[in-house]
Amino acid sequence: MKIGNWEPNILDFFLIFLPIAFVLQFAHAGGTWIFIVSGLAIIPLAGLLGRATEHLAEHVGPGIGGLLNATFGNAAELIISVFALQAGLYGVVKASITGSIIGNILLVLGLSVVAGGFRFKTQKFNVTAAGMNSTLLILSTAGLVVPAVFYYLLVGSDLPAEEIAASDLDVSLDVAIVLFATYVLSLVFSLRTHKHLFDTTDYEGPEDGAFETWSVKTSVIVLTLSTLGVALMSELLVHSVEEVTETMGMTEVFVGVIIIAIVGNAAEHSAAVMMALKNKMDISVTIAIGSSSQVALFVAPVLVFLSFFIGPQPMDLVFTPLEVLSIILASILVNFVAVDGEFHWMEGVQLLAVYFILGIAFYFLPASIA
Amino acid sequence: MKIGNWEPNILDFFLIFLPIAFVLQFAHAGGTWIFIVSGLAIIPLAGLLGRATEHLAEHVGPGIGGLLNATFGNAAELIISVFALQAGLYGVVKASITGSIIGNILLVLGLSVVAGGFRFKTQKFNVTAAGMNSTLLILSTAGLVVPAVFYYLLVGSDLPAEEIAASDLDVSLDVAIVLFATYVLSLVFSLRTHKHLFDTTDYEGPEDGAFETWSVKTSVIVLTLSTLGVALMSELLVHSVEEVTETMGMTEVFVGVIIIAIVGNAAEHSAAVMMALKNKMDISVTIAIGSSSQVALFVAPVLVFLSFFIGPQPMDLVFTPLEVLSIILASILVNFVAVDGEFHWMEGVQLLAVYFILGIAFYFLPASIA
Amino acid sequence: MKIGNWEPNILDFFLIFLPIAFVLQFAHAGGTWIFIVSGLAIIPLAGLLGRATEHLAEHVGPGIGGLLNATFGNAAELIISVFALQAGLYGVVKASITGSIIGNILLVLGLSVVAGGFRFKTQKFNVTAAGMNSTLLILSTAGLVVPAVFYYLLVGSDLPAEEIAASDLDVSLDVAIVLFATYVLSLVFSLRTHKHLFDTTDYEGPEDGAFETWSVKTSVIVLTLSTLGVALMSELLVHSVEEVTETMGMTEVFVGVIIIAIVGNAAEHSAAVMMALKNKMDISVTIAIGSSSQVALFVAPVLVFLSFFIGPQPMDLVFTPLEVLSIILASILVNFVAVDGEFHWMEGVQLLAVYFILGIAFYFLPASIA
Repeated sequence: MKIGNWEPNILDFFLIFLPIAFVLQFAHAGGTWIFIVSGLAIIPLAGLLGRATEHLAEHVGPGIGGLLNATFGNAAELIISVFALQAGLYGVVKASITGSIIGNILLVLGLSVVAGGFRFKTQKFNVTAAGMNSTLLILSTAGLVVPAVFYYLLVGSDLPAEEIAASDLDVSLDVAIVLFATYVLSLVFSLRTHKHLFDTTDYEGPEDGAFETWSVKTSVIVLTLSTLGVALMSELLVHSVEEVTETMGMTEVFVGVIIIAIVGNAAEHSAAVMMALKNKMDISVTIAIGSSSQVALFVAPVLVFLSFFIGPQPMDLVFTPLEVLSIILASILVNFVAVDGEFHWMEGVQLLAVYFILGIAFYFLPASIA
Repeated sequence: MKIGNWEPNILDFFLIFLPIAFVLQFAHAGGTWIFIVSGLAIIPLAGLLGRATEHLAEHVGPGIGGLLNATFGNAAELIISVFALQAGLYGVVKASITGSIIGNILLVLGLSVVAGGFRFKTQKFNVTAAGMNSTLLILSTAGLVVPAVFYYLLVGSDLPAEEIAASDLDVSLDVAIVLFATYVLSLVFSLRTHKHLFDTTDYEGPEDGAFETWSVKTSVIVLTLSTLGVALMSELLVHSVEEVTETMGMTEVFVGVIIIAIVGNAAEHSAAVMMALKNKMDISVTIAIGSSSQVALFVAPVLVFLSFFIGPQPMDLVFTPLEVLSIILASILVNFVAVDGEFHWMEGVQLLAVYFILGIAFYFLPASIA
Repeated sequence: MKIGNWEPNILDFFLIFLPIAFVLQFAHAGGTWIFIVSGLAIIPLAGLLGRATEHLAEHVGPGIGGLLNATFGNAAELIISVFALQAGLYGVVKASITGSIIGNILLVLGLSVVAGGFRFKTQKFNVTAAGMNSTLLILSTAGLVVPAVFYYLLVGSDLPAEEIAASDLDVSLDVAIVLFATYVLSLVFSLRTHKHLFDTTDYEGPEDGAFETWSVKTSVIVLTLSTLGVALMSELLVHSVEEVTETMGMTEVFVGVIIIAIVGNAAEHSAAVMMALKNKMDISVTIAIGSSSQVALFVAPVLVFLSFFIGPQPMDLVFTPLEVLSIILASILVNFVAVDGEFHWMEGVQLLAVYFILGIAFYFLPASIA
């Protein structure tokens, strides 16, 4: 499978959904259709956005390149969330954060391990780099659990509601600052002081082997257009969420945790599985666990900061109890599964099983509680 | 100590309690006495059941043999639970599931490590096989935690009780299906695709060394008789639980978690400790952790399925908060203790200490809450 | 930096605060000033107390010496807590236990790893000894979580308050006994049966290299005087806590968890960082993780036992939910960070980040809830 210089990827054919989405929108089609089609259109756009970033990174040297990759790697999630933020759909924003975290480590990594396991009995990977990302995940878990516990403790008391909301926001903002600062330091660590740990020599750009780097101009144009595309589709997607939840009898949280998260991470998803099939498990692990910790340490705090400017009111970091539980379970499980530096297909099954179990609970949780 | 071809094991002398139990039953003796005597009678019967399974497994080849062992390995627990299920004692059923899980990893493994530690300074074991079982345990933990959290979230809301019960059962049934499917896949993994990982060459049948396999006929007869015996004793045991809890001032949950679990797992218990004393820690670990994950992935779902047919109403998978906490603590502790592939006696003490701490809490928890 | 035979350590200059504290006390100065100055005076006194213990240990042979170190190692924390116990400030006592546990593993170890990381790219340490201490920590976590969960389950019920208090105390006392027994066994393990695991040959007494052991007489005199000093300062400190919380708008729990814990552990703190700067990470890890588990397994149970004699009423082991969460997060994080036997500075940052996140929550938690 060759992706380089414009050779189309299977997902690229999904670009056909981009014009369809516009047609549906102008024809005032039902929200559910718009939701489905705009979601399908985001998948290839997010992939292009990612590839353009990687091509551009090739031109600017490893330091800035790494930074570019780290920042734009989750651009699709970020853009979708920004539109949800503007619309005041804070439940959806947080649900898609949760969904990205558990989706990357349970679904993406699980499928990668299972897929790789069909070809290889045992797949080895570098424990140090994986360990760095997976303990970052425990840290992020702390960052997302503490504001929730803080909030539920306060809600259980007889303090006045405004006071609760105020200290809740204080805690969330301060925690977001700590998470973001840790993120910046982790970039210093992985791009500067300890970059040798993350040298996966077999990974040279978006696709190793027969691959031609796009020119800076091409990269920038693709980056701009795909970002624009993701933005437009995200707006359609977000504005149809409400209708979807009503029509399909699914809660906002389920849509955010499962569906939007899958859409936003589809590019990482296919990349991780492809790498696993080539026995490049290091890259699969980095994509899956790295994306999860980036969402928690970069996307989540940035959304909190942005909410002060573009949201109807500031957003806190208080996740629902089931979301908190999901993040805890996922990050503990992945830490244990990854500790020995090798994967068998059964470990993939275990990750997927936990994903299904959590999915079941999110599906059945009534909207009044979720 | 030689157990082979009918050479009696110390526990076999407990078979004397089998006729005593019948006598007491027909003499309408007090329930507490019947409880104690039938419990003591189950111990050797469960042992015979296990040995007959292993002997039979020798005749049918490793594939089916492994399957037989895996299925009948927890037959005693399963039979006791089936009788409790029929009697509608769902609290006892779940408590004995909890008790089997924490009993195997804290009490059985703890005693094995301490016993082995008296003879050997350091005892090594194969991390890969242990790791597979111990991460399966984390997965099972997820499976048992999620329905509980789901239920307590719903109970805290103002939804109508029937609606809560309905979605609770939906979630429990679906989670049970996921757990059972994972169990089936784990058998494929350990008996077929990766059986080399579980080859403990020093373990050739029920007892290595001077050992003669029972004939198929002997095995089947012993298997049938001991199953029948366990069934009869379980019925006596279960029907006297209520009287025991009243007379002795113990709660159903305490009886299930501590006492029934010890009775049902006595055979595994003595086998694991004996293996530890022979420095065959691999087998001890497999027995202890493997039994725990089998209870969670096989016994628990099967009981949920059976409850639709033989119980007064379907059983959910909602454990009490203290049970959930126990399962979480036990499975996290064993994962950390087993991560380095070696045991010292102090690690056994740690496992036992957590068992005592949990036992204390179960003992003092009032019946109205447990 | 040479500390041996009376050569002063930088912290020793803080002894100047000892007379200042007396002056302030007799001048009836504000409580906040007395709090600050007596706190500053405890820092060098705790250091002297520790050094005198180590010098004395040199004279009595490794067995008793190890016991001395283990018992007096946390003397400062213990003395402060005893005064708080007498004053009935049980919230402060428990908060300083929590603070010592999380302070040692997150703040002390975090700073050590960061400090060491400025000089060394990778710092290795012995996993077996660290593993022993860090799984002890999981056990302690169980010991501190179970009584809390037990209590909150009972409080949520409609049992009469006296009954709740009674079973709560039963559970706490029994758990304290189990923890203390485990502590005694862990000393047998580390000082007798497996002392070779803890032989850090590069650590010969309080300060390796040019160092002269104090005579028994000197050691005993310094030990006595510093203990007396810590006791006097602790009394001033504890009696000014209430005024501090009122004046500064901080809760008792925040003062206990963050401030008193830092004061009481300042000596360990500076020792651990100094060792890290010398690349003796084994010692830093032992100090940090060992102190934490000692606080949970030795200081906490001893305070429960003492409360029956010197407190206004017996003290239970029920920590606040945020304290429980902090202990859980800290002990899980340190277990994952320490599992691979090497540190990079980023792991220190992660530990510190979790410390800050918890500190933020404790700071904003209203007194009525904390």
